[in-house]
Amino acid sequence: MKLIFIFTLVFAAVNCYKYTVKTIDVLLDHFTFTDNVTFPLRYLINDSFVKDHRSPILFYTGNEGDIELFAENTGFVWKVGEELGAIIVFAEHRYYGKSLPFGNQSYSDPRHLGYLTSEQALADFADLIEFLNIDRVRPVICFGGSYGGMLSAWMRLKYPHLVVGALASSAPVRQFTDVVPCDIFNRILTGVFGVALNTTHCVDNIKKLWPVLQNFTSNDAGRKFLNTEFKFCKPINKTEDFETFYDFLQDVFGNLAMANYPYEANFLAPLPAYPVREFCGQMNNKYDKNEDLLTAFNVALQVYTNYTGKVKCLDISSAYDTSMGSQGWDFQACTEMVMPMCANGTTDMFMPKKWDFKEFAADCYKKFQVFPREKCAIAQYGAWKFDTMSNVIFSNGLLDPWSGGGVLRSSNPAVGVIIIPDSAHHFDLRADHKDDTKNIKWARKYYIEKFKEWIETY
Amino acid sequence: MKLIFIFTLVFAAVNCYKYTVKTIDVLLDHFTFTDNVTFPLRYLINDSFVKDHRSPILFYTGNEGDIELFAENTGFVWKVGEELGAIIVFAEHRYYGKSLPFGNQSYSDPRHLGYLTSEQALADFADLIEFLNIDRVRPVICFGGSYGGMLSAWMRLKYPHLVVGALASSAPVRQFTDVVPCDIFNRILTGVFGVALNTTHCVDNIKKLWPVLQNFTSNDAGRKFLNTEFKFCKPINKTEDFETFYDFLQDVFGNLAMANYPYEANFLAPLPAYPVREFCGQMNNKYDKNEDLLTAFNVALQVYTNYTGKVKCLDISSAYDTSMGSQGWDFQACTEMVMPMCANGTTDMFMPKKWDFKEFAADCYKKFQVFPREKCAIAQYGAWKFDTMSNVIFSNGLLDPWSGGGVLRSSNPAVGVIIIPDSAHHFDLRADHKDDTKNIKWARKYYIEKFKEWIETY
Repeated sequence: MKLIFIFTLVFAAVNCYKYTVKTIDVLLDHFTFTDNVTFPLRYLINDSFVKDHRSPILFYTGNEGDIELFAENTGFVWKVGEELGAIIVFAEHRYYGKSLPFGNQSYSDPRHLGYLTSEQALADFADLIEFLNIDRVRPVICFGGSYGGMLSAWMRLKYPHLVVGALASSAPVRQFTDVVPCDIFNRILTGVFGVALNTTHCVDNIKKLWPVLQNFTSNDAGRKFLNTEFKFCKPINKTEDFETFYDFLQDVFGNLAMANYPYEANFLAPLPAYPVREFCGQMNNKYDKNEDLLTAFNVALQVYTNYTGKVKCLDISSAYDTSMGSQGWDFQACTEMVMPMCANGTTDMFMPKKWDFKEFAADCYKKFQVFPREKCAIAQYGAWKFDTMSNVIFSNGLLDPWSGGGVLRSSNPAVGVIIIPDSAHHFDLRADHKDDTKNIKWARKYYIEKFKEWIETY
Repeated sequence: MKLIFIFTLVFAAVNCYKYTVKTIDVLLDHFTFTDNVTFPLRYLINDSFVKDHRSPILFYTGNEGDIELFAENTGFVWKVGEELGAIIVFAEHRYYGKSLPFGNQSYSDPRHLGYLTSEQALADFADLIEFLNIDRVRPVICFGGSYGGMLSAWMRLKYPHLVVGALASSAPVRQFTDVVPCDIFNRILTGVFGVALNTTHCVDNIKKLWPVLQNFTSNDAGRKFLNTEFKFCKPINKTEDFETFYDFLQDVFGNLAMANYPYEANFLAPLPAYPVREFCGQMNNKYDKNEDLLTAFNVALQVYTNYTGKVKCLDISSAYDTSMGSQGWDFQACTEMVMPMCANGTTDMFMPKKWDFKEFAADCYKKFQVFPREKCAIAQYGAWKFDTMSNVIFSNGLLDPWSGGGVLRSSNPAVGVIIIPDSAHHFDLRADHKDDTKNIKWARKYYIEKFKEWIETY
């Protein structure tokens, strides 16, 4: 089981928004004075909507990927920018996209990669905000989805003097050790597949799938069947290949749920409307023979892997687009973003796997020569307590497996909690669409009202 | 002119409070993963007053000196600890006292000393609080005076999930570039000397002193007079010695004002009640001859340098006790705690000296091979804006030259501003005394009421 989920969706460029690409020199290490090294951090800016010197700044706190992808695919920020006459900024997160402190050496070892932390990224953003808002007259509102949403909320938490408010969409700020149960992601994910059609066959079939796949991968006849059926780009040829296939499928299931949008879209993969329902529709029968189960599953899987019908073979090396910094996020998850994941095979549809921090840590050391700091993010950001926060909206869709780590209730009236029953992963940040649900429309309207309130009180 | 003031007073151990000395291993660098080095941070703890598992923790955020000095001399925390049945903790600041990450190599160069920053110190404190309050049931209140007070306020700002409130006494959180005028310290200092007696002769005489001293230091006859009069431990013998003497005297004037308490006390030096008044009482006449001015000044100076009458010679190498980490603070002032200081000789009693950041930076590089980051603390802590803070009390005495950089007004009801007209530098943190003024008594009572409120709402 792959322990790390990359949980930010990358939207394909359907709109072409206009911006200038700039850089700002930021310190490699904001919190020591051992040296004074800087590197250029990339950001995108559009000030064409600006009305006057008090116009707000909408600041997207970039996450684990190329910032241009986020700019192209976070239509809601562009819409708000135009409506409020704001400066729009998309700031790239260090170590992603083109913001590599050591060029192509950035990922070579911990001496180079060790500066990839959320605290340093927030300090980069703080410096950029100070630079863009030098006389501090403009109210700054942060935006972000997923890890970017966590960063937005944390900007408001740690730099409330720089940021008047934040919209943290699908931000699992509570997805840390002992704050939420480790099986919550897989439980919700299973729930999404369970309610996709008016039957439970789909989930039952997925549960049945694992021992069958494991068995088939363990012998020549089985592997031959699988290779013929699934048409792997690189045919499987040993028992251990099950592990690779399983990791890939876990990601696919997660991505299907995260991207479970009400209209056809092109994300990590081109997908139909409600792709989970489409998937389940293909394996919703009872199958007496294992071969039949596998055949049905192969058809279902193609909802994700081959919706265009043009894919020639199945590549199980990664379920993610190359523009996403999956290696960077792996490192972050192995250092401070330790998000325990487990499954029990009963209340979820996966193979039972306990969360074992020691094993996880050993694995991280093998991969990156670093030791994870299990509770670092909790101490830094206080995953369990939001009573002093203000002007932060946490939004979560209940079709999003990451919602389990989100903020779903608040006794603090200054923290807005928006739950969108029929929304998947940071759907609300997308551009308006004719098939948007009522709930999404309402949420976006609410956000803009709140932004106006924040700006007025600034 | 010495540009850096060490502004925390160290009280001599008049009380003997009981505590256990412990250490906790903290990360040398909390914000990167380039390596995993730790060092033992010292803290003092007394849990003998504890009532139950919900009893609060009173947490002194140590500043630039040996923590035992602060524990011995911050009587108010001990009093509150007893009254509230609290655990009392005094945490040492890294690089001071015995909390030296690299032992006696800690100050050798920026590669070793560069980890001496306030952000790292706050993260040390956060880890210690997490360790002491593992089930997070105990409300934690931070205390600190001067730089320690800044750290207390910043703990609440940056780690509100760990700390329910903070008393920041005489904390110049606004003493940064372009937030307050650079002459404000010297202006207030001059005011304190101006109102010490019902006459302005004292200040006028101090103003006249500088050219006279400068002139006397520049020739043999003058130096002979000065050496005979002041009895320097190391006789002055060249024009440049004026600079050393001037730096020393600036510190003495600052310290006299900071320690301008209503009763005899033994701080950086043994001092009478209201030492500024005592000082001015000795040079309050009009002196026609320069020699008479110098003679009167020598007598006045001994209020600070020789109140016991037992000091044999005048040591002008430092006005500070060796227990204070003056080298460490010099480094902090040369890195992120850049506090511009200037004088004009008109509205203050010093020699005119502009604030010149470039010159300051060059000087810092010469001393420590570091470049100061002029606005780093402002970006990190927002020296101009406190509207999102809550449960913080900023207290300032108007007899304290550092009050100019303190928070003296607030439109935010959750930030308490206590101004004590007749108080000097973090006087309110001291133990009760029979000569305490009404204002001080009232302030301490107010603090305890507030603490109780914070604890109740936790």
